[in-house]
Amino acid sequence: MKVIRKAKQMQREMKNLKCQGKKIGFIPTMGALHEGHLSLIRKARLETEIVVVSIFVNPTQFGKGEDYKEYPREFKSDKKKCEMAGVDYIFYPEVEEMYPKPYYTYVEVEKLQEPLCGKFRPGHFRGVATIVIKLFNIVMPDIAYFGFKDYQQYVIIKQMVKDLNIPVKIKGVPIVREKDGLAMSSRNKYLTPEERKEATLLYKSLLKARELIKKGERNPSRIKNEIKKILLSGKIINSEKIDYISIVDPVTLEELKKVDRECIIALAVRIGKARLIDNIRVKC
Amino acid sequence: MKVIRKAKQMQREMKNLKCQGKKIGFIPTMGALHEGHLSLIRKARLETEIVVVSIFVNPTQFGKGEDYKEYPREFKSDKKKCEMAGVDYIFYPEVEEMYPKPYYTYVEVEKLQEPLCGKFRPGHFRGVATIVIKLFNIVMPDIAYFGFKDYQQYVIIKQMVKDLNIPVKIKGVPIVREKDGLAMSSRNKYLTPEERKEATLLYKSLLKARELIKKGERNPSRIKNEIKKILLSGKIINSEKIDYISIVDPVTLEELKKVDRECIIALAVRIGKARLIDNIRVKC
Repeated sequence: MKVIRKAKQMQREMKNLKCQGKKIGFIPTMGALHEGHLSLIRKARLETEIVVVSIFVNPTQFGKGEDYKEYPREFKSDKKKCEMAGVDYIFYPEVEEMYPKPYYTYVEVEKLQEPLCGKFRPGHFRGVATIVIKLFNIVMPDIAYFGFKDYQQYVIIKQMVKDLNIPVKIKGVPIVREKDGLAMSSRNKYLTPEERKEATLLYKSLLKARELIKKGERNPSRIKNEIKKILLSGKIINSEKIDYISIVDPVTLEELKKVDRECIIALAVRIGKARLIDNIRVKC
Repeated sequence: MKVIRKAKQMQREMKNLKCQGKKIGFIPTMGALHEGHLSLIRKARLETEIVVVSIFVNPTQFGKGEDYKEYPREFKSDKKKCEMAGVDYIFYPEVEEMYPKPYYTYVEVEKLQEPLCGKFRPGHFRGVATIVIKLFNIVMPDIAYFGFKDYQQYVIIKQMVKDLNIPVKIKGVPIVREKDGLAMSSRNKYLTPEERKEATLLYKSLLKARELIKKGERNPSRIKNEIKKILLSGKIINSEKIDYISIVDPVTLEELKKVDRECIIALAVRIGKARLIDNIRVKC
């Protein structure tokens, strides 16, 4: 496994591999790797010949007052995990390498960046789209893997790739959960033991929502109310901590007025220092 | 010479050529080809093995009330010119091929898109940056050629390529002029014979400005006043027709307070149905 810190060098190596006809799989990450990331890496390992992981805590996707400085940085253990998972290359650039001054260019995916987390994290998806297109230009992958946990991110990247004719295939990979259902996230580390316990309410509420739909409930408000009831059933989460509970179309991310087709139920809740998101896809 | 109308097919052909180690030169155009375009094509012909010209009147770079509909479309004669100039591929897509609905993604190059033409054509450079990145992803050129006539565009594309790590080299090519000095432009076709005559004042005023600087003038206001005097010396141009006269740094596009280094003198003037731009680089 090779660790590369410079964009130009990465491009050179990737170009060589591509010219040899090698299929490149790519997993962009911010490090602090967990089983969720590893499931992406494993899928890439199965489907492609060269697996590249990038580790970069991207400043442009953090808003003011967000956790850019606190975000866990643990390259040594990340490197071990990559090695164990059969990664071929880690791209691990410095901030100055990715955003040399002056830096002016940003990519926006209109409409899809507006709802859900977009409302509460202005500029976030602009930062995500921008760093992803940069990484795609550097790594030149054939397939790139994204977790469904960041569902809106997945939809935005898919749209960007289509709109900008980027020659890469985007694959979404199911959420990996802890035994008690909590979706894996690098931000779970922020939780105290008590908060960690309360955090299980997110997935529980989503399961309840799915159950309601399976039983025939079609009214989004009633479903959201049930979710809210469960979220508020513990000791820590109160109404103000819930950024949103949404039931949206999986492609357009538009809020459903009636649950008359497949949908994504998504929510974001702030617990302690963490802002947690989760979602579930439900057929009806 | 091959004419290709579909992005996917273009990408396939280019990928094959790249894998054979061919160097690809690219000239993005809106058609209505003139000697300016042909000089770009000739340079590409000398420096690269496969020369690709795109012909696409890009709707997203035209503002409301601008000349999108009137812009000259003359594919037959363009094709002949390309053939004569030794072009290998013309990429000639439909609007629906480049902007299939829904379309949401745009690229912005902040700061550099603000001054000069950016002030008078809001959204123009966003449309330019977006179509150029799309075309780069489709054609995957090694070198792309841009005329210095659209100097701000050249600076913006260069910055975008650097910022987004796009693996292409951008080359600027000198302005080609008619015998009487008028910079070649597809929009010169809009001019009546009388307007066409008056249009020569643009370059004349730039030459005068250069002369002043060569003689030691360092005050931008005095230079701009001399330019204005010449522009207003005819029968058609009046003050309201002058969008701007600017003396800027060639890299940052910032207005110079003192002409103490190399600079670009740029101007935009509306004559009849045409909005004409021109510029000159001056060392001091």
